[in-house]
Amino acid sequence: MSEYPASFERLIFELEKLPGIGPRSAIRLAFYILKKPVEFSTSLAQALVEAKSKIHPCRNCFNLSEGALCTICQSSRRDTSLLLVVEDPSDIVAFERTHEYQGLYHVLGGVLSPLEGKGPQDLTLNALVQRLQNNSQWKEVIVATNPTVEGDSTAFYIQQQLKPFPVKVTRIARGLPSGGDVDYADESTLLKSLEGRQTL
Amino acid sequence: MSEYPASFERLIFELEKLPGIGPRSAIRLAFYILKKPVEFSTSLAQALVEAKSKIHPCRNCFNLSEGALCTICQSSRRDTSLLLVVEDPSDIVAFERTHEYQGLYHVLGGVLSPLEGKGPQDLTLNALVQRLQNNSQWKEVIVATNPTVEGDSTAFYIQQQLKPFPVKVTRIARGLPSGGDVDYADESTLLKSLEGRQTL
Repeated sequence: MSEYPASFERLIFELEKLPGIGPRSAIRLAFYILKKPVEFSTSLAQALVEAKSKIHPCRNCFNLSEGALCTICQSSRRDTSLLLVVEDPSDIVAFERTHEYQGLYHVLGGVLSPLEGKGPQDLTLNALVQRLQNNSQWKEVIVATNPTVEGDSTAFYIQQQLKPFPVKVTRIARGLPSGGDVDYADESTLLKSLEGRQTL
Repeated sequence: MSEYPASFERLIFELEKLPGIGPRSAIRLAFYILKKPVEFSTSLAQALVEAKSKIHPCRNCFNLSEGALCTICQSSRRDTSLLLVVEDPSDIVAFERTHEYQGLYHVLGGVLSPLEGKGPQDLTLNALVQRLQNNSQWKEVIVATNPTVEGDSTAFYIQQQLKPFPVKVTRIARGLPSGGDVDYADESTLLKSLEGRQTL
């Protein structure tokens, strides 16, 4: 005999599949959901199904989009000579929050990672090369993959692939984060902050 | 312009309503759900709707149940002279795990709490009295509300209400938990462990 009614056990089972939700939180969540009016669970259920069915990668840049093109690619206000290459759609949101960058984006869908068996064909690298071939408007490609071993080697790989094109390929700066502390910074960060020093 | 497509924003919004899920976790969960195959979100959506539509309080004891009576009330193996009163259905699961208690249960649906405006009419107290009126099989009612101020006063209230019936009303023991440490126990727990001391 299971401890809870079958449909309750199943809800716990499904909630446990979510990242960061252990068995105890799943039970707590399930009880919470059961106590709420029926609209609570139907709204969540609907949002789950709708998001998954409506959202597709933008045909151009692979950002999240409900139409063929995402809102950034559709906009007429963006600087079409600048291309910022990121790992994931969430990185676009981070850059958009700065309200400074006005160029376009390209979402790789991850980084090259031999350990996880992720090669160039698993990323949107061909599409990136295609974008440079199709248009001559590009002046600069900024590679904003994360400052990790994989992010760095992916950036290097992109730089190699884009050599045939008359475009500047740059990498976002590394150093101490704003509000950071020299005392607490790791050696790699301090080294990068020295290498990238600028005249005052 | 919102940062994400509308249906993605809505999913984040719905996920954020869950207890313990802040804005950052909601975004992380939403991205995780979007990366999974469509079956992932449809299964979770279905489980949400089904659990809420199928599960109702047991007509007898107010435990979670898919039928009119819960599996415990339906069972012919339980000791029908013992009634254990608990706050929530999750407490039943805790007692069932001991594999010792063989009696029946009664779920109050909370405790009396004047501060939260919760009075006797908000609990299943009338139904409890009714259960004692309907049957003379009962020998003992064990009140297992939590050892808190509200739990204690609810237990006292129940004891008052059950005075007219020829039934023993008891309260679960308080003291040091198994594996506990006298050194670290709070004063109230130590006092209770003295008051409830038993001959060796």
